[in-house]
Amino acid sequence: MLQQLFAPSVQHTLDLIGIFVFAISGALLAVRKNFDVFGIAVLAEVTALGGGLFRDVVIGAVPPAAFTDLGYFLTPLLATTLVFFLHPHVERIQTGVNVFDAAGLGLFCVAGTAKAYDYGLNLTASVALGLATAVGGGVLRDVLANEVPSLLRWDRDLYAVPAIVGASLTVLCIHYDALTPVTGTLAAVTAFVLRLLAMRFHWRAPRAWNRRSTVREE
Amino acid sequence: MLQQLFAPSVQHTLDLIGIFVFAISGALLAVRKNFDVFGIAVLAEVTALGGGLFRDVVIGAVPPAAFTDLGYFLTPLLATTLVFFLHPHVERIQTGVNVFDAAGLGLFCVAGTAKAYDYGLNLTASVALGLATAVGGGVLRDVLANEVPSLLRWDRDLYAVPAIVGASLTVLCIHYDALTPVTGTLAAVTAFVLRLLAMRFHWRAPRAWNRRSTVREE
Amino acid sequence: MLQQLFAPSVQHTLDLIGIFVFAISGALLAVRKNFDVFGIAVLAEVTALGGGLFRDVVIGAVPPAAFTDLGYFLTPLLATTLVFFLHPHVERIQTGVNVFDAAGLGLFCVAGTAKAYDYGLNLTASVALGLATAVGGGVLRDVLANEVPSLLRWDRDLYAVPAIVGASLTVLCIHYDALTPVTGTLAAVTAFVLRLLAMRFHWRAPRAWNRRSTVREE
Repeated sequence: MLQQLFAPSVQHTLDLIGIFVFAISGALLAVRKNFDVFGIAVLAEVTALGGGLFRDVVIGAVPPAAFTDLGYFLTPLLATTLVFFLHPHVERIQTGVNVFDAAGLGLFCVAGTAKAYDYGLNLTASVALGLATAVGGGVLRDVLANEVPSLLRWDRDLYAVPAIVGASLTVLCIHYDALTPVTGTLAAVTAFVLRLLAMRFHWRAPRAWNRRSTVREE
Repeated sequence: MLQQLFAPSVQHTLDLIGIFVFAISGALLAVRKNFDVFGIAVLAEVTALGGGLFRDVVIGAVPPAAFTDLGYFLTPLLATTLVFFLHPHVERIQTGVNVFDAAGLGLFCVAGTAKAYDYGLNLTASVALGLATAVGGGVLRDVLANEVPSLLRWDRDLYAVPAIVGASLTVLCIHYDALTPVTGTLAAVTAFVLRLLAMRFHWRAPRAWNRRSTVREE
Repeated sequence: MLQQLFAPSVQHTLDLIGIFVFAISGALLAVRKNFDVFGIAVLAEVTALGGGLFRDVVIGAVPPAAFTDLGYFLTPLLATTLVFFLHPHVERIQTGVNVFDAAGLGLFCVAGTAKAYDYGLNLTASVALGLATAVGGGVLRDVLANEVPSLLRWDRDLYAVPAIVGASLTVLCIHYDALTPVTGTLAAVTAFVLRLLAMRFHWRAPRAWNRRSTVREE
């Protein structure tokens, strides 16, 4: 079980860091959309906890961790407070936020995959749920903000691929009975570095061949 | 258990009233969006039952009450019929509808909080789910209608705060073992009155300090 | 149990066909929205599996079939590959796709209704979940693509009604203890034919009487 992959306190700290940076990304979008302070808090909570909530509901781990661990719930409110008062300063360190967001992506795709497998899903389904854990919150964030999910847009740097790679490495380790703190960390770091490289070099995924798009290029 | 907070028949009647007024708000938006009669029915059902459905799925109370109680399912269809035939008259009494919607908000934040606590959630999580019960249907309504959820917009009168207050009063009563029909009603009435005052005096929540918005004021 | 309504291999093949055609409709919309290949895959998966996923979460059948059956998960990826490379050709046979989509609608409304009943829901709730199984994926597809769900729009040919008829016929058969492979097929075929007729003759549902719409006709 991944809960034993790291010492519990280490795992919990890593989770809280991931939740915090995801919440920052939700809160920043809320400010850009002109939401009030409650809208900022809602979007921070949804972005930070939505992916894990979806996973837990699907695998039947109810009530989800998001509602049983007080720290999980309060961390997005801390992010909300920070963004509310210091919004221009947080915007200014957007690059730093993106780096932490990449770290959250790496962490959650590994943790989500391992938890799904713990609950009896097969390897492929565990990868799918690991991906959903990592990117689900961002998709919910964009849907609530009434925007096309940035995950789906062709003009954004690769986001799903690093998570898929991290989740796939995790199930490979599970399959060969080799998931340890070291290999789990390696999988997360691989996803993290891939995402950093995708941002640095603007890696993008191809669109359909020979499409005749009915919407204009945006 | 809240099911015993009021006599079951009283509780059920209150639930149906809340469901009915939420369904009216969904049906009215559907007409404004030019949906056909099935679109009106779907939006009425989702608005009325969505919040409770989310809560029940999260706490593991499946199948949710929305699918086991026939009255819960049929009431939104009654609202659909009314709005379908009498739309201009229902629009004309929008203020009346808003008052009932405020009553539904008060009722559902208390009932949702108590049910979440009954299923073993801690006090903070119970408040969060009580809030989600009360406002979740409206958020789903707006997402399906492809609009920015009015819950999140800064230019709408306070909606979340009355529900948070009502849910917080409920857990305070639970914590001090003082949740009775009288105190439960008081919590619901407090939320109800706060929402009425927010509408009357156009109370709004602040937006982030020093924001440099990238969307124009709407 | 519907799992025994047809021979398991027949049922499974029918499911995969339904999943495939729904996935094609999701992938085609993704191409029209200019999504990249991962966006196409996500929209194909969501469209194909979303309705059944919602049903399974609501009735407590977790983990959902979408995550336990490898074929269910891989079929949308096959549809993604096809649309990615052969998009103009798939568009050209849109009518054929629509016919298969109607077949998927008929199949899923019957299968969804029967499964919901198997899990202890009453007859009305089973119809509602059969409908949700058949149309839920399409609604999620449109929400993710940031469009008004075509299910709700007045200017689209009837889609919900055929599914409601098929689901209702199914519970009638269940009620009179007459659900057999023959009657189940008849219910699915009825929904299928109704949908074909609705497309052929552009049957539409009425909008509210005397509405004074606040959005322009689109």
